[in-house]
Amino acid sequence: MKLHTLTIVGVGLLGGSLGLAAKRRGVAERVVGTGRTQAGLDRARQLGAIDAGTLDLPAAVRQAEVAVFCTPVDRIPEQVLEAAPGCTPGTLLTDVGSTKGVIVKQLEGRLPSGVAFVGSHPLAGSEKRGPEFADPDLFQDRLTIVTPTPRTDPAALEKTTAFWRALGARVRIMDPQDHDEALALTSHLPHLVAAALAGLLPMPLRDLTATGFRDTTRVAAGDPSLWTAIFRQNRPAVLDALRAFEDYLGQFRRALEAEDAVALDALLTQAKKVRDALGN
Amino acid sequence: MKLHTLTIVGVGLLGGSLGLAAKRRGVAERVVGTGRTQAGLDRARQLGAIDAGTLDLPAAVRQAEVAVFCTPVDRIPEQVLEAAPGCTPGTLLTDVGSTKGVIVKQLEGRLPSGVAFVGSHPLAGSEKRGPEFADPDLFQDRLTIVTPTPRTDPAALEKTTAFWRALGARVRIMDPQDHDEALALTSHLPHLVAAALAGLLPMPLRDLTATGFRDTTRVAAGDPSLWTAIFRQNRPAVLDALRAFEDYLGQFRRALEAEDAVALDALLTQAKKVRDALGN
Repeated sequence: MKLHTLTIVGVGLLGGSLGLAAKRRGVAERVVGTGRTQAGLDRARQLGAIDAGTLDLPAAVRQAEVAVFCTPVDRIPEQVLEAAPGCTPGTLLTDVGSTKGVIVKQLEGRLPSGVAFVGSHPLAGSEKRGPEFADPDLFQDRLTIVTPTPRTDPAALEKTTAFWRALGARVRIMDPQDHDEALALTSHLPHLVAAALAGLLPMPLRDLTATGFRDTTRVAAGDPSLWTAIFRQNRPAVLDALRAFEDYLGQFRRALEAEDAVALDALLTQAKKVRDALGN
Repeated sequence: MKLHTLTIVGVGLLGGSLGLAAKRRGVAERVVGTGRTQAGLDRARQLGAIDAGTLDLPAAVRQAEVAVFCTPVDRIPEQVLEAAPGCTPGTLLTDVGSTKGVIVKQLEGRLPSGVAFVGSHPLAGSEKRGPEFADPDLFQDRLTIVTPTPRTDPAALEKTTAFWRALGARVRIMDPQDHDEALALTSHLPHLVAAALAGLLPMPLRDLTATGFRDTTRVAAGDPSLWTAIFRQNRPAVLDALRAFEDYLGQFRRALEAEDAVALDALLTQAKKVRDALGN
């Protein structure tokens, strides 16, 4: 794949990594960035993540063969709707949002003829923010989930998967709703739980934490407003996951209350089995 | 500090690290290891973590100026009681157990005259096991909590803190019960919660996890029997911590149920504040 122009909307850690990866791999001749501040665009250009930057979203996307929206999930639908009318027919719009159902639904059937939106979610990222933390290998061998619907143009879907593969990612196709239910368990619930663990820690005990606490709560350093938007968009699935977690944690509590070492050991053994299967 | 003989009871990741650190830093002329299997002792000797190994616990400890028990928390009291009668007067016995109250209480007043036990807990470790994962820098700049009681011999306490400092650790003195209540929140609760998150994950979703899930659940790969023993020994404090966590997590759930984005953002902001203060 060789695009003449790739446009990145939002040049933070993810958008910046996308630009670095696209340039490093020769996926695009030119990478255009757009964002909220000139300072952010300037930093992204200095870091080599984009070739040019503009604050004008429609102008940035007008030149694109592919445009990727790397902005907060609650901003993506409106930005796509703002950008799409100026796009050349054949333009592919996609995103990196952690939720897919609401975004895909809000855009389905609302784009000009010839302009397609296909939802994407690369399972890569960090609790850090900003193009300074961009990594050209962020997508390498990582899974990107692509979420077409029955109405998605097959050519647009094909272009989306080819784009992610060109960046080094593996691709899996999923229904948007299935994606959201899965990510509620693999990402959104762990974030809530990590945040509750971190928030519960009394100030004087901070010195008494070690790598275990830091690993377990690392994601809680993520941006609160980004995550509030994710939780709102995926509310039903996150609530289902949270209630299932509360029930399951109750099994641990009851085993401990009952001094049932056999039950507790069995729960910990199941957890270890799952965790060992994930690798480091 | 220069010991003639340091004895390590249990030459796994922690015991092996202790041996490597002591030899690297010249803290002991000779490091003797004892453990359950000759194979484990042989590996520890090949890795340079001990100079000599024996399966005979009393014999290993008889030669020691300092002996450190690096065995499961439910084994430490009985092993100390088994080893102490053969020790030379002046021998210091300490440990690396993650709980302190039960261990210290079970040993207080039960050792021969001239032989002291002082509880220790270096806040360092890993979910991995075995001397292969030993690290001579494991204790470097890490906190070791030392838990004397009013009956602890001041000279023994002084020797304990000097020993850990000689290995590169920072030392904090705490009451055993205070230690256990703090660690319930900073280590034991996070372990339970990580285990519940891991154990809840359905098999087909394993491919859809990324670094966030892996960080949050990493400690769940720890040995179930070691952790069952820790939870049993620190049961009241762990239950208190778990109930407080369940209440706090309920605040997240109710904010989500009520679609109260302001409350959810405030909870996530508090979590981020705590997590940011801990560093990477």
